[in-house]
Amino acid sequence: MRLQIPKALRWEGEEQGRLVLLDQRRLPAERRELVLRSAAEVFEAIRTLAVRGAPAIGVAAAYGLVLGLQPGAAADGPALVEQARAVAERLAQARPTAVNLGWALRRLVATAEREAAAGLGPEQLRRRLLAEARAIEAEDAAMCEAIGRHGAALFPPGARVLTHCNTGALATAGIGTALGAIYTAFARDPALRVFACETRPLLQGARLTAWELAAAGVPVTLIADSMAGALMARGEVDLVIVGADRIARSGDVANKIGTYALAVLAAEHRIPFYVAAPSSTFDLELDSGARIPIEQRDPDELRTLGGVATAPPGIQVWNPAFDVTPARLVRALITERGVIAPPAPERIAAVLAGGAG
Amino acid sequence: MRLQIPKALRWEGEEQGRLVLLDQRRLPAERRELVLRSAAEVFEAIRTLAVRGAPAIGVAAAYGLVLGLQPGAAADGPALVEQARAVAERLAQARPTAVNLGWALRRLVATAEREAAAGLGPEQLRRRLLAEARAIEAEDAAMCEAIGRHGAALFPPGARVLTHCNTGALATAGIGTALGAIYTAFARDPALRVFACETRPLLQGARLTAWELAAAGVPVTLIADSMAGALMARGEVDLVIVGADRIARSGDVANKIGTYALAVLAAEHRIPFYVAAPSSTFDLELDSGARIPIEQRDPDELRTLGGVATAPPGIQVWNPAFDVTPARLVRALITERGVIAPPAPERIAAVLAGGAG
Repeated sequence: MRLQIPKALRWEGEEQGRLVLLDQRRLPAERRELVLRSAAEVFEAIRTLAVRGAPAIGVAAAYGLVLGLQPGAAADGPALVEQARAVAERLAQARPTAVNLGWALRRLVATAEREAAAGLGPEQLRRRLLAEARAIEAEDAAMCEAIGRHGAALFPPGARVLTHCNTGALATAGIGTALGAIYTAFARDPALRVFACETRPLLQGARLTAWELAAAGVPVTLIADSMAGALMARGEVDLVIVGADRIARSGDVANKIGTYALAVLAAEHRIPFYVAAPSSTFDLELDSGARIPIEQRDPDELRTLGGVATAPPGIQVWNPAFDVTPARLVRALITERGVIAPPAPERIAAVLAGGAG
Repeated sequence: MRLQIPKALRWEGEEQGRLVLLDQRRLPAERRELVLRSAAEVFEAIRTLAVRGAPAIGVAAAYGLVLGLQPGAAADGPALVEQARAVAERLAQARPTAVNLGWALRRLVATAEREAAAGLGPEQLRRRLLAEARAIEAEDAAMCEAIGRHGAALFPPGARVLTHCNTGALATAGIGTALGAIYTAFARDPALRVFACETRPLLQGARLTAWELAAAGVPVTLIADSMAGALMARGEVDLVIVGADRIARSGDVANKIGTYALAVLAAEHRIPFYVAAPSSTFDLELDSGARIPIEQRDPDELRTLGGVATAPPGIQVWNPAFDVTPARLVRALITERGVIAPPAPERIAAVLAGGAG
């Protein structure tokens, strides 16, 4: 079965091309595309969350750098490298804490430096940087495909799958990580169905996951985060699959707030709990999840919604962005290099080194 | 310590009095009182949720019936009884499924019938019905006080308490049930602090519980429902206390959706989980929680908030009003007649029959 999975972004044309983004600020109310022709427009799109999700931001920034290099504006290779550095520096400020953003821009600047040193002229360099941006996009899409394949192999027939937050096509340059596994499984098993937790406070599950699954034709039912336990108790969930922001050497997983509670509830109901994430998510410097720093976010995310007060103004709020799920609650980690089951330091090290899971 | 606990309603004056309601439709943005002088105004206030919470609705309706009996309009006692029946029939339609509403109105009509048969005239009957409405209010307040006393005795010093939904002064004619225990404990232990779950989808925790605790001077921190597990894992919760909509003979508890997940998480972290509810909440006809019917609510509660689309329009939604927490996860049931710990059919029967818990 061929799915119509939405794409967060695509490049149209050759060097004189443009970056087309699905404007995520307008979701779920409206599906509208933005056509971007300059680095300044890409900067604005990243800053205002028209594109979000670490991998998608990285790819958008790479194309943004290409758009920032005007044909004919650089006299020679070294001048173009200078331009590339300046554009990259500016683009990196669009979301200073986004790791993939800086990584993608550094990769393009390093490519420009290397190829300029090898003697390429400005027009050759522009073509080379566009090829590099396309490579980053293609690598991300391939990573999603591989995670999807490994993950889908774990799904039973007719699986009823619970997921949290958005880890899909809207967050990556491909079919997503946890949602990648769902799309891959659904493509060969149309009996699959999904429950999406709305994911308070920012409602990525309601606004984005429910939208992209429905747009792709995957049956999806929206629930409040607080309903997951009752749904499991009714025997209506066969597996839980989520993404990860960071995974420690121990296999402990930091992910969107609410993930830990889902893992505890899954264990209580003997439901397998899976985490799908690229190998770049692992931070082997961290020996356990206890050492993962947890960002506290703006209290107003819980006090207001769309300008409406939903709580007393000024009320004290605890609003962590992430929580940590201990490895003992995770049935398997699903990476593009294979499945790590159960998660244990030596297995993690082996799979990341390229061995089988 | 004397707390300034808000009151959902009060009667002002004697027979020529008026019902003053805290307008809960305006919370948390604004604290405004409604002064009601007719049964039609009380009908409208109940219908539009200016007053909510089963016990508070019952008391408001009783006063509404008194307001519906104009001085001098009835020629004799039987004529006033006829009027009372007609007003009660109308008021009962304000929220047809609210059990306490019908119960309070039937109690006043029965009082009118009995006293008219005993020979009371219309003015005496009006005074008698006002006294009966006041008795319903006083009984509810006394029930809250007793639950508060029994519940507070279970709190350790400096307790950090997690609660869900609204079970407080805004829902009753007194200090509330689960919140009654919190107020009573705080009055003698100012080190106590509360975490309020926002309680999706209707946000009673954010809009009402956070508001009334803050108004009373009790330190309260708001969290999203999905954060409770992570908070417990950090060792920041000493006990969980919630209310109940219905309790089966087995001790299984139906309560606001999300309660069951909190009970599972509390068990995982060895945190005591308490349920506070009046003895009228028990339904001894039901042998287990599996037989408690669960209302499905409007899907738009999860698709929109304050007119803003938070999910794709028309997306499928699962939106149960309640879930069922099995008795094995409940450390104690707290009633006005005593504490039932652990909940077991024979102990429940004994305490409801008037014995000690």
